[in-house]
Amino acid sequence: MYKNTTLCYLEQDNCWLMMHRIKKQNDANQDKWVGVGGKFEEGESPEDCLVREVQEETGLTLTQYRFRGVVTFVSDRWPTEYMHLFSATEWQGHMIDGDACAEGKLEWVPKQQVYNLPIWQGDKIFLRLLEQHDTFFSLKLVYEGETLVQAVLDGKNLSLKQ
Amino acid sequence: MYKNTTLCYLEQDNCWLMMHRIKKQNDANQDKWVGVGGKFEEGESPEDCLVREVQEETGLTLTQYRFRGVVTFVSDRWPTEYMHLFSATEWQGHMIDGDACAEGKLEWVPKQQVYNLPIWQGDKIFLRLLEQHDTFFSLKLVYEGETLVQAVLDGKNLSLKQ
Repeated sequence: MYKNTTLCYLEQDNCWLMMHRIKKQNDANQDKWVGVGGKFEEGESPEDCLVREVQEETGLTLTQYRFRGVVTFVSDRWPTEYMHLFSATEWQGHMIDGDACAEGKLEWVPKQQVYNLPIWQGDKIFLRLLEQHDTFFSLKLVYEGETLVQAVLDGKNLSLKQ
Repeated sequence: MYKNTTLCYLEQDNCWLMMHRIKKQNDANQDKWVGVGGKFEEGESPEDCLVREVQEETGLTLTQYRFRGVVTFVSDRWPTEYMHLFSATEWQGHMIDGDACAEGKLEWVPKQQVYNLPIWQGDKIFLRLLEQHDTFFSLKLVYEGETLVQAVLDGKNLSLKQ
């Protein structure tokens, strides 16, 4: 079975708000850095889930966001996940202390440094798309363990050479 | 629990390819007219599912299509469904006989006539979006029985007066 999730990258001063996932056991993202987000609850649209998860994890209420793409994450170790990818540029409220989030540690990281953090290989592909691609995209990423073995953008295979 | 599906509107000569769902029992779409598509299978991206379902239901192999939006269908009678909406303008192969599809009866219908067929109320909203809206959209439709009680476009409530 699969699950639907949201994943949001809040942007400010050329940084992304990253979460260092060091607090949960049996987490596909354990020890990795990712955006904020989580699983769809019953009857939620992608936007419903987005706003709730960002509120829960950061204390912030999004007021300006964009639905950027769907990432189909397929793995030989984890259930297939459909990640609904958003970027956000405006919000209200005060961010909770970076250590207070139950899911991980929050930190603003300059965008170009994010690529050097421990992140999934395919995350670099969609982060570049967030930076450079203005239209909605659908990206399929197929992993064997930690290794990205296939990436397909809008139905077309991408070359995986680095 | 929810399900992810694709729904595709093939376009030709100002018509859409419609399926009259008269062949399946216990079908949320029973007797209604809809596009073609179906449920995600294991590990499929929206595009994988799209191409497979259109092939199975029509005999056609899509060569040009666009991912237009996600429709969150919430109902008091049926499980929540995330419909990945595509339009298509090019394909190869020959269409199977309109009566031969196991899911329903296929028919090319002039777009403006589609609005007068028995279709879900909210389908009229996303069909207009397919006709008039060039960017990707996320539409949430909430039904009580056959009645549309809420429509939310990109996080903003739509007025439901006709």
